Amino acid sequence: MENTVDKEANQSPIPVGVDTTEPTHWYNIGADLPEPIPPHLNPGTKEPITEAELSGLFATELARQELSTERFIEIPAEVRDVYSIWRATPLMRARRLEQHLGTNSRIYLKYEGVSPVGSHKPNSAVPQAYYNKLDGIKKLTTETGAGQWGASLALGGAMFGLDVEIWQVRASYESKPYRRYQMELYGGTCHSSPSELTEIGRQILAEHPDTTGSLGMAVSEAVEVAMTQPDTRYALGSVLNHVVLHQTVIGQEAIAQLHEAGEETADVVFGCAGGGSNLAGLSFPFLRHVLTEGAQTRVIAAEPAACPSLTRGEYRYDFGDFTGMTPLLKMYTLGQEFVPDPIHAGGLRYHGMAPALSHTVNLGLVEAVAIEQDHAFAAGITLARTEGLVPAPESNHAIAAALDYLAGPGRDRSETIVIGVSGTGVLDLPSYQRFLPEAQA
Amino acid sequence: MENTVDKEANQSPIPVGVDTTEPTHWYNIGADLPEPIPPHLNPGTKEPITEAELSGLFATELARQELSTERFIEIPAEVRDVYSIWRATPLMRARRLEQHLGTNSRIYLKYEGVSPVGSHKPNSAVPQAYYNKLDGIKKLTTETGAGQWGASLALGGAMFGLDVEIWQVRASYESKPYRRYQMELYGGTCHSSPSELTEIGRQILAEHPDTTGSLGMAVSEAVEVAMTQPDTRYALGSVLNHVVLHQTVIGQEAIAQLHEAGEETADVVFGCAGGGSNLAGLSFPFLRHVLTEGAQTRVIAAEPAACPSLTRGEYRYDFGDFTGMTPLLKMYTLGQEFVPDPIHAGGLRYHGMAPALSHTVNLGLVEAVAIEQDHAFAAGITLARTEGLVPAPESNHAIAAALDYLAGPGRDRSETIVIGVSGTGVLDLPSYQRFLPEAQA
Repeated sequence: MENTVDKEANQSPIPVGVDTTEPTHWYNIGADLPEPIPPHLNPGTKEPITEAELSGLFATELARQELSTERFIEIPAEVRDVYSIWRATPLMRARRLEQHLGTNSRIYLKYEGVSPVGSHKPNSAVPQAYYNKLDGIKKLTTETGAGQWGASLALGGAMFGLDVEIWQVRASYESKPYRRYQMELYGGTCHSSPSELTEIGRQILAEHPDTTGSLGMAVSEAVEVAMTQPDTRYALGSVLNHVVLHQTVIGQEAIAQLHEAGEETADVVFGCAGGGSNLAGLSFPFLRHVLTEGAQTRVIAAEPAACPSLTRGEYRYDFGDFTGMTPLLKMYTLGQEFVPDPIHAGGLRYHGMAPALSHTVNLGLVEAVAIEQDHAFAAGITLARTEGLVPAPESNHAIAAALDYLAGPGRDRSETIVIGVSGTGVLDLPSYQRFLPEAQA
Repeated sequence: MENTVDKEANQSPIPVGVDTTEPTHWYNIGADLPEPIPPHLNPGTKEPITEAELSGLFATELARQELSTERFIEIPAEVRDVYSIWRATPLMRARRLEQHLGTNSRIYLKYEGVSPVGSHKPNSAVPQAYYNKLDGIKKLTTETGAGQWGASLALGGAMFGLDVEIWQVRASYESKPYRRYQMELYGGTCHSSPSELTEIGRQILAEHPDTTGSLGMAVSEAVEVAMTQPDTRYALGSVLNHVVLHQTVIGQEAIAQLHEAGEETADVVFGCAGGGSNLAGLSFPFLRHVLTEGAQTRVIAAEPAACPSLTRGEYRYDFGDFTGMTPLLKMYTLGQEFVPDPIHAGGLRYHGMAPALSHTVNLGLVEAVAIEQDHAFAAGITLARTEGLVPAPESNHAIAAALDYLAGPGRDRSETIVIGVSGTGVLDLPSYQRFLPEAQA
């Protein structure tokens, strides 16, 4: 069986509430791509995974969304209600940064840092908690890197009355206790991964007692618990199609906000890419206009040089986790056992890249650049000292890529630049310390 | 000489841009009060301080604003431009909290936590930096408690190219390093107070080597440096009339946002009160309608039981600092040498209260309640688990006061409640840990 693009959905009218500051629907890019997103495979049969198989792990509606070819999927009122706590997030014209760079281009920052946990992650955590609640689930398990996703799912759990248990990559668990406090404030429980609480955790610790952990390992632990405890399901914060789908509120808002600012569209959109959901959420609504109306928008994915899945990885089927418990995903990957150096940008440590985003890269719709960490922090410091915003270390990669672009051959052009600032770096201030110019002097 | 209310200013028309989400003017409540705000006194002569005397310490325009009886004072375009990075701040309807409480009232949160440093403090730091820049000043000095003001002034300095040197109360300096990192990220310099860098700091350390510090001590150090170094001036983050003035953007926006939400006005406004600028900024624009149009709005100041200047202090002239270097201010005070227990709500540790706010309390326009710290944190946890927001520990006092009110005799009433949430508690997450219900179980 092969996934095919649903031509009927393609012809369906655009619902009211798309590309507005209060989107009523998520956008599914799969419906508009010239080739369908390659299906996930059952690791046993190597056949495309079915909705029924996915339902074992994910909520019914999330499993449906994962395989859907509908172009627009309605956002439940209960989810929009929670979104309204912090959405629409601001699109900010960065005039001081423009002046500092001496560019003729107009720079806009789409800033997800105003969410309760300070990043874009609740955009998917909230609907995931909601759909699981609908299924009568009592507990969600998940993994987290820097901690934004874990805190986001704990928030989602608090909003809809679910317990949330989180395995956090050891390197971040030990260096970023504030995120754990945040999870606990929302009523969640957080463990360092690998942990002694799971079979797989104990195995990894026996073999690699000094491991700094990885997202892949933490995924394996969370999945194991979800599959062995009653009324418990797993939730994933990036990579999968339904996560990417939920994040498309970012780009839809940005398009509406650009229009409000008198811009037709963006010439170039920059976003950081770890698992891919932030950049996909920001850029796919722009790519809808590229795919369906011939709009001209370049999308540039900025990934860390220390974990360069798009620029150095292979495009092939691979497991989403360390031990091969997940479906096989077609993606740019460094290999399921890849463990990056413990860089500070914890959210960008994943070995693979969302299949939906990988596919658009493979189709030439999205370009990729790799950014060194010191270069990324320097860009973040420039932004803080010109615009006041303290970006998340992950977001700094996007800012650095944009600054490189604006310093390059096109610097005299007058373009509309959108930079996705996926979160605030206020809990990452210690990481900034050693990159301050004074510290290097 | 006695300060008199300028009757002519009282008759002046209300400028376009008052009580909007983009205020063009700050509001000076002094123009509308039945009795003028008692003047500050020269500590030597005990005569009302003059603009010329204040100009030695503050920027020319700030000295003018401090004594002004104009009702509306225009916000410079350069300041509004920086404000626009994060303002208007959201006014959020707290429906989940309402449901949780079972109240018939409508609760709105005016949330200042979205500013770059996460609190209301930049509302005054930005114009203070701007006016000093106009005067050709090269460096600003200041004190800070929890660190929000220090970070805000560092931000203001970064926006207008000024050096900023900050003395932070030792208790906070040691327990809250993130705030110092924030100051340094913006290019500021932060010292623990009392420090060996000033004459007064050395004196205090000689007598009290184990002191946890106080805002009064830190003020003395910052003032000493400002008075002894060239092109250097002092900036104060609360208490003074010009600071209160700058904060009135908060209340003006809130009024406009209530109108947008279909509310005529607020029945009760709650705010936390440390130095008083946050509550004054939120409530004075509401009080304008009380004073000039007979509107019915109660204003309730929530102060910490550990530092109860309004509920337990005396209303008299006192110094603003530890050693008596500032003008004498008429205010509710616990005495210039009062050192509170090192409670976590570092921003509420000041021994006095803004003269403008003290005066409105004395006139019966503002009521005061004292809140115990554990009660405050419990309220903050309730808000986090219902609305997602993590309030600053200071803000928790206002939330607790509102929850007490809504649980009291008036709980069946259907009122419009506005709670000032002066900042985010994301950098205070460690403080939340020991107040979690699980921790107490």
